[in-house]
Amino acid sequence: MTKEGEHSSFHGKDYVDPPPAPLIDPAELKKWSFYRAVIAEFIATLLFLYITVLTVIGYKSQSAADACSGVGILGIAWAFGGMIFVLVYCTAGISGGHINPAVTFGLLLARKVSLVRAIAYIVAQSVGAICGVGIVKALQETNYMMYGGGANSVAEGFSVGTGLGAEIIGTFVLVYTVFSATDPKRSARDSHVPVLAPLPIGFAVFMVHLATIPVTGTGINPARSIGAAVIYGKHETWENHWIFWVGPFVGAAIAAFYHQWILRAGAAKALGSFRSQSHV
Amino acid sequence: MTKEGEHSSFHGKDYVDPPPAPLIDPAELKKWSFYRAVIAEFIATLLFLYITVLTVIGYKSQSAADACSGVGILGIAWAFGGMIFVLVYCTAGISGGHINPAVTFGLLLARKVSLVRAIAYIVAQSVGAICGVGIVKALQETNYMMYGGGANSVAEGFSVGTGLGAEIIGTFVLVYTVFSATDPKRSARDSHVPVLAPLPIGFAVFMVHLATIPVTGTGINPARSIGAAVIYGKHETWENHWIFWVGPFVGAAIAAFYHQWILRAGAAKALGSFRSQSHV
Amino acid sequence: MTKEGEHSSFHGKDYVDPPPAPLIDPAELKKWSFYRAVIAEFIATLLFLYITVLTVIGYKSQSAADACSGVGILGIAWAFGGMIFVLVYCTAGISGGHINPAVTFGLLLARKVSLVRAIAYIVAQSVGAICGVGIVKALQETNYMMYGGGANSVAEGFSVGTGLGAEIIGTFVLVYTVFSATDPKRSARDSHVPVLAPLPIGFAVFMVHLATIPVTGTGINPARSIGAAVIYGKHETWENHWIFWVGPFVGAAIAAFYHQWILRAGAAKALGSFRSQSHV
Amino acid sequence: MTKEGEHSSFHGKDYVDPPPAPLIDPAELKKWSFYRAVIAEFIATLLFLYITVLTVIGYKSQSAADACSGVGILGIAWAFGGMIFVLVYCTAGISGGHINPAVTFGLLLARKVSLVRAIAYIVAQSVGAICGVGIVKALQETNYMMYGGGANSVAEGFSVGTGLGAEIIGTFVLVYTVFSATDPKRSARDSHVPVLAPLPIGFAVFMVHLATIPVTGTGINPARSIGAAVIYGKHETWENHWIFWVGPFVGAAIAAFYHQWILRAGAAKALGSFRSQSHV
Repeated sequence: MTKEGEHSSFHGKDYVDPPPAPLIDPAELKKWSFYRAVIAEFIATLLFLYITVLTVIGYKSQSAADACSGVGILGIAWAFGGMIFVLVYCTAGISGGHINPAVTFGLLLARKVSLVRAIAYIVAQSVGAICGVGIVKALQETNYMMYGGGANSVAEGFSVGTGLGAEIIGTFVLVYTVFSATDPKRSARDSHVPVLAPLPIGFAVFMVHLATIPVTGTGINPARSIGAAVIYGKHETWENHWIFWVGPFVGAAIAAFYHQWILRAGAAKALGSFRSQSHV
Repeated sequence: MTKEGEHSSFHGKDYVDPPPAPLIDPAELKKWSFYRAVIAEFIATLLFLYITVLTVIGYKSQSAADACSGVGILGIAWAFGGMIFVLVYCTAGISGGHINPAVTFGLLLARKVSLVRAIAYIVAQSVGAICGVGIVKALQETNYMMYGGGANSVAEGFSVGTGLGAEIIGTFVLVYTVFSATDPKRSARDSHVPVLAPLPIGFAVFMVHLATIPVTGTGINPARSIGAAVIYGKHETWENHWIFWVGPFVGAAIAAFYHQWILRAGAAKALGSFRSQSHV
Repeated sequence: MTKEGEHSSFHGKDYVDPPPAPLIDPAELKKWSFYRAVIAEFIATLLFLYITVLTVIGYKSQSAADACSGVGILGIAWAFGGMIFVLVYCTAGISGGHINPAVTFGLLLARKVSLVRAIAYIVAQSVGAICGVGIVKALQETNYMMYGGGANSVAEGFSVGTGLGAEIIGTFVLVYTVFSATDPKRSARDSHVPVLAPLPIGFAVFMVHLATIPVTGTGINPARSIGAAVIYGKHETWENHWIFWVGPFVGAAIAAFYHQWILRAGAAKALGSFRSQSHV
Repeated sequence: MTKEGEHSSFHGKDYVDPPPAPLIDPAELKKWSFYRAVIAEFIATLLFLYITVLTVIGYKSQSAADACSGVGILGIAWAFGGMIFVLVYCTAGISGGHINPAVTFGLLLARKVSLVRAIAYIVAQSVGAICGVGIVKALQETNYMMYGGGANSVAEGFSVGTGLGAEIIGTFVLVYTVFSATDPKRSARDSHVPVLAPLPIGFAVFMVHLATIPVTGTGINPARSIGAAVIYGKHETWENHWIFWVGPFVGAAIAAFYHQWILRAGAAKALGSFRSQSHV
């Protein structure tokens, strides 16, 4: 709860920004820790989709029988947000805890992961998501197909542009939170930043679901969207599927830009002449 | 969970109260960190209103079709409280994480921010709120106008005085929590104070919404109220709009007085003669 | 998440148990910190009752008009638990954050507060609760009287014994959590104990409300029960009011015994001969 | 939020893995701390079942009278998850905070508790659960027997295999979280791991309940299942009771394998030749 601007004028740096990750790091591929991280992303995304889609299908089948029964849309929003909290907590130390291609893409733009790692993660997340939804379908195929398969789509009455906009801003909220939680400068200064980290990330997902389930069912995670789309497999699901990749990637890119250029050194350095003049 | 009175009699101070912020600090205006903080307040309040008003409109449109559907009023309360948790977490290190003119006003009275910074924040928060609600309207104008635009007003059956009282006490709860969370004396002694800080602040907002949504829709944040009022723009919204500025500012002032004079040094110093006598 | 038994055999003590609080400590009465703590308990209990009873009345009036509206009984449980979280967070460093005569009574039995302080707290909590409910009634008298005034009573179909049992066990859960959160031995060893402390205390209150709202409306806090009883003032409210004092006090006493004698040194010391024999 | 692979190549170990627990440790049986831990598991599981089953019965009786009343299935999921959060917080320092035979079994496989301790815990948990449900029945026998007694069973329309699969994966989610939270390597490096620990464990339970209440009522805890089965005692409850022991134990075993062999040293060591070659 402190404003850090005042300090940075007087003190030396009390934190270390790691150097930008290389785009291609051949040494990375020779380490077990790399493959372990990829496996952890695969398993985490599998569990994420398994629990959340099972919650969606369970709610829809219960409320079809009795309107007031089931965990409600609030329960669905909790399932998405709560699982991200749990899984980021569990995998942060292994893989960084992305569990979402949009998060990986944002961190790639900020040069916090290598291109090779980013591609491996996105593939692992997508395959994990497909497997997670596949397990739900295997366990209860009738309900799964009857109640929409957990697939994302733009709800009736909304335009494609509205859906795209909702995905962009929703992902911005999430990836902005991820950047705030993993900023080495802030971690060194505010004790709540590293300790709480997985909780606000999970809450950001919860919040966006509260707001945009009525609009798109809430993607903000291309792996989540493709997992359900592949397993549900109906033609109409694919029609606007691009929204759930373009929207999240655009939102993540804006968040990376906002964090790196506005909140951190980028813009300040660019404005260096302004500052040196005004300090005289 | 310790009573600190006993310690302060025996030990020297183990914390540092920063000096009171000047009312006008020209040097502040020459730092990039000042403008960055103003931008962070603008963006955070924009996201706050975007997510929360979208949740309100989504709930109202879903429950209009099916009474048991939607995230419920409980989900709306979560949206307001949860977003404050996430955004205070994200912006505390940049701007102090106010996201609310009443919080800024309370901290100004306690001389924790300068007058210049307070004014800049309140303008940024108000404009950010207007933009956030504006995006919701842009994405779904029909629903937005049909379901009340997320605007605050005193509910049917309640007097203006009741609404004002609810806003005053509600804001007191919030700003009292903010003061407790940012007190340098307590942060130095109770490890939960700085680490958890954004969570009880978010919960305070959540709690007040549970209690006063049926009364005023819950303002306790003039930026939130003016953002919805400007974009919704109906005449009746403006009728009692002053409640949502006067109430929060009065509540914040009482909280600042309570914290500075009762809980911290103020009153104790004023009663110094009483103590020095009784210690003899 | 470590078992501490193994360590205590090998190491000296890495924590300090404060000496038992005296029953009557005249020096305490001469310190401003004592009066400040009493004021903090008064204000915190006032806010606790204000928010929670307003939530109860708001829910009942909204759901009377439309069964699916309002924050639900889940929202009411959140209001009680969430407010305790916020208020314990805010007042822990000032007064210890009791906000409940049963908590004060349990800590008195464990000799963690003096008798004088315990009496002052219990009076402040009860008066604060009455004022908090009084504000709710002042703001909306019609609804307040129509929807039961937030008063506790044994629900139809349950015996007095069932109500008493539910209050005893419910308060045990709460006070056991308070003892666990404030144990100096555990705080020194498990980093989550002092940092998270207010959160599990709030959650304990939330949990007990989920379970016993259908039975007694959930007291587990005599100040909460007397506050509503005094302001609501109907004859039938007083009939079984003793349950809401005897139950919580008995539950708190059992929790104090369990923590001090089973989990901490008491019983182990009593069994000293057993241990010294078996170690030979 | 850091990838630890890079560090482990350059630094020595900054953490200590405790040695594997012996299967039978006679010294353990001579310590008061052992019996205290067993008592703590008994009491914690008793409270867990008391609160959760009372919540289930309360919800079913309220919603039978009025479909929209009661805490909802979301409230039930909160009761299970929230109680685990509170009880793990309270007992972690005493017994390790298992409160679940499947957790004990997983930690036994990973050689983190001795066989003797595991058996004593599982017995204490099962007896505690039976007592906890017994208290609910004693307090309100009519409601208890009318509304299903809180017993687990495979819901109509699902096969035994589906129920078993849901129990296996659900327990995997929980025990994987427990392993992540108690890993000494990660605790030393990520500050959120030890501090938050009880919260994601509670959330994991909450999440699994959201997903699988419609399938099996959610066991993932054999003590919870046997406690309700013994007290409810109807013949059909016992028919598939084995699912709620085999499923959780299989899920816990897979989680132990995943954590010890994939995420920690096991597999890496097994692949040592691969690494030494590729490093040349």
